[in-house]
Amino acid sequence: MDAQSYAPLAADSLPARLGTIPALRDRLGNPSTWRAREVGDGNLNLVFIVEGERGGLVAKQALPYVRLVGESWPLPLTRSFFEFHALTRQAARDPGSVPEVVHFDEGQALVVMEYLRDHVILRRALIEGQRPEGLGRRLGTFCARTLFRGSDLCMKPADRKADLALFAGNVDLCAITEDLVFTDPYFEAPLNRHTPALAPLVAELRADAALKIAAQHLKTAFAARAETMLHGDLHTGSVMVGPGSIRVIDPEFATYGPMGFDVGMLMANFLMAFCAAPAHAGPDHGAWILGEMRAVWTAFEIEFTHLWRTERTGMLFPPALYEEAGQAHAAEQARLDWLGGVWRDTLGFAGIECHRRILGLAHNADFETIPDEALRAASEARALALGRALMLGQGAIPGIDSLLALARDIAERDWL
Amino acid sequence: MDAQSYAPLAADSLPARLGTIPALRDRLGNPSTWRAREVGDGNLNLVFIVEGERGGLVAKQALPYVRLVGESWPLPLTRSFFEFHALTRQAARDPGSVPEVVHFDEGQALVVMEYLRDHVILRRALIEGQRPEGLGRRLGTFCARTLFRGSDLCMKPADRKADLALFAGNVDLCAITEDLVFTDPYFEAPLNRHTPALAPLVAELRADAALKIAAQHLKTAFAARAETMLHGDLHTGSVMVGPGSIRVIDPEFATYGPMGFDVGMLMANFLMAFCAAPAHAGPDHGAWILGEMRAVWTAFEIEFTHLWRTERTGMLFPPALYEEAGQAHAAEQARLDWLGGVWRDTLGFAGIECHRRILGLAHNADFETIPDEALRAASEARALALGRALMLGQGAIPGIDSLLALARDIAERDWL
Repeated sequence: MDAQSYAPLAADSLPARLGTIPALRDRLGNPSTWRAREVGDGNLNLVFIVEGERGGLVAKQALPYVRLVGESWPLPLTRSFFEFHALTRQAARDPGSVPEVVHFDEGQALVVMEYLRDHVILRRALIEGQRPEGLGRRLGTFCARTLFRGSDLCMKPADRKADLALFAGNVDLCAITEDLVFTDPYFEAPLNRHTPALAPLVAELRADAALKIAAQHLKTAFAARAETMLHGDLHTGSVMVGPGSIRVIDPEFATYGPMGFDVGMLMANFLMAFCAAPAHAGPDHGAWILGEMRAVWTAFEIEFTHLWRTERTGMLFPPALYEEAGQAHAAEQARLDWLGGVWRDTLGFAGIECHRRILGLAHNADFETIPDEALRAASEARALALGRALMLGQGAIPGIDSLLALARDIAERDWL
Repeated sequence: MDAQSYAPLAADSLPARLGTIPALRDRLGNPSTWRAREVGDGNLNLVFIVEGERGGLVAKQALPYVRLVGESWPLPLTRSFFEFHALTRQAARDPGSVPEVVHFDEGQALVVMEYLRDHVILRRALIEGQRPEGLGRRLGTFCARTLFRGSDLCMKPADRKADLALFAGNVDLCAITEDLVFTDPYFEAPLNRHTPALAPLVAELRADAALKIAAQHLKTAFAARAETMLHGDLHTGSVMVGPGSIRVIDPEFATYGPMGFDVGMLMANFLMAFCAAPAHAGPDHGAWILGEMRAVWTAFEIEFTHLWRTERTGMLFPPALYEEAGQAHAAEQARLDWLGGVWRDTLGFAGIECHRRILGLAHNADFETIPDEALRAASEARALALGRALMLGQGAIPGIDSLLALARDIAERDWL
């Protein structure tokens, strides 16, 4: 295999192309026993499951274009480089949270990693009514560990700046977020689509000046508030659940940004699952989902607090000014301030994520799999109303219980 | 001259070392006519004025340590690289605002630039009671042009991210700001010093938990809010004034940060000049300085508004959402929001700059040149009070007139 010349893998030739790599032979056994199948159901990449006599691995290879759209939308192979670097950092910051990386080939834009056997995508599990044990707690803890430990609250300033510079290279994937999440939903961008019955609501949102200003303030925060290394795409399609196991995958959108972006995108996808639940597993499942959202935020607060007290080794809020000056209470006040800021950001980013999944290019299976179009529109309309309330009411929703009450209230009303 | 091997220049050997460079021969004439003298009075570098038969130039060379402190505080030569890149960007974004760069040698950490004959440092001019024509307007315009045009309001996203990554390498100069401005003043850091009579006030500030929390929120904004390329050290010692000419120099602290940092540092140094004026040129001069502060902010607003309306070509607040959707008023509302944010940041950064110049390592000639220690302490005490009011009252000072009224009010009272 010529490392200089990129070529997409294919299932039948994969054993021949990767069979000489010692790390893969160790994990899979003799290449003559390898069987590969392409299973990519995402929007961007090739994904192969490779199984051999000793075990299985996943080979994820970037394509030089957006798979969802085709060769007309080129996308650089370097996203694989950023995914590799994000995975290694996440593994160090929250061991066991992501698939183990076994092999990386930058020239082939290829990451070979642990095969999560018997795992399914969380979004699918939620649609089916599954209730993975400890789900919200695990994801809230993941957010706290990765976001705290990638920031100037914890890292050496030179290391954070080097990572900031590294991930600033992830230009094209950031541009997808910048355009598709923050701008396109709010005007008639060519790639947008929505359920036809939503048309009056969509027109109302696109004429709402305050909402569009809020959207661009959120975009500014995403682009310019380089607080920490984000996963960058932390929705329920980026989480896999299996027996006693919860893993976060696909961090190719990783970039430096505000902590609330990851938490907010995750919360939004739970909220959309909640809005869709009556059409799938039923309203009881929706209530369970809200409970998991409380668990996400509670676990985030608990773990963030623990790390603030025990690993605040970066240059921000240094103990020299607080604990070592006999003012530990001031460090606690600053922690609450910080968490309050993350909470407000979380609400705003959650709101905009609800909108873009209904008004923009990339939709969610939660809604897309509702066959009855009127029911789908009614569910989506609730999520749109919720999104607007979150984006404009950041200051008026003081905590997780207020958010859940708001979600329940909006779900009881008809918005079309 | 061997480009690979750094060696500090000396006045007597400078013509021999630089005399083969065509760009310098063009501007200075035959090297046998060159006369060089070292004039560096700053904290960090060697600065030579070189004059020849045809004209003069300035040669600024970084030293591998902090000149103010000595070889015990190493500082990388790369700051010259960042100064060069900042100067070229400032020249493009606000033509005529900075000295023209004639030659850059990265290996020698050397920038050779236009000699600003008959110019003096603004800080010195203000102490002497000079009133440079159009001062505030020119500096406010400089801030608007450089800060707007270096941001995602104007630049292509990929270009801004590339610059963000480039300037993220300016780690050691950022660390000086991060430590000396935002942290050291608020505890007994080894390099701090202050006028002895201030001791009770200093103790009060260092015990003020709310103030120390505000300081670290400001530090977080400086470190993580990568809005635009900052000058990074825009005090009155970084401005030169001459007949009909105002130039900004010394951007070696350039980094991506919040717009209010540059504006705030500039405002703080005017405020300190105002507090010191009664001990120098007199209170009338202080009143003139406040008027120039109004001119800074007014010019900033006017030019920023002009650029917002005519050069908003970046990805933030795109016209597609506002003007092109028939909602030009929303773009105006967003502009006012943005300016409000810069104003609040300006107040906070101005407050902390006042503190660090009195409590920290690097003091200002405005106060240092007041021979009467009691008078000096009284002047500094006013600036400390003002700094605290700005850091804690960001939301309660709605505009420039409120700020100037606050400054006058504080100046009328005795704080010791």
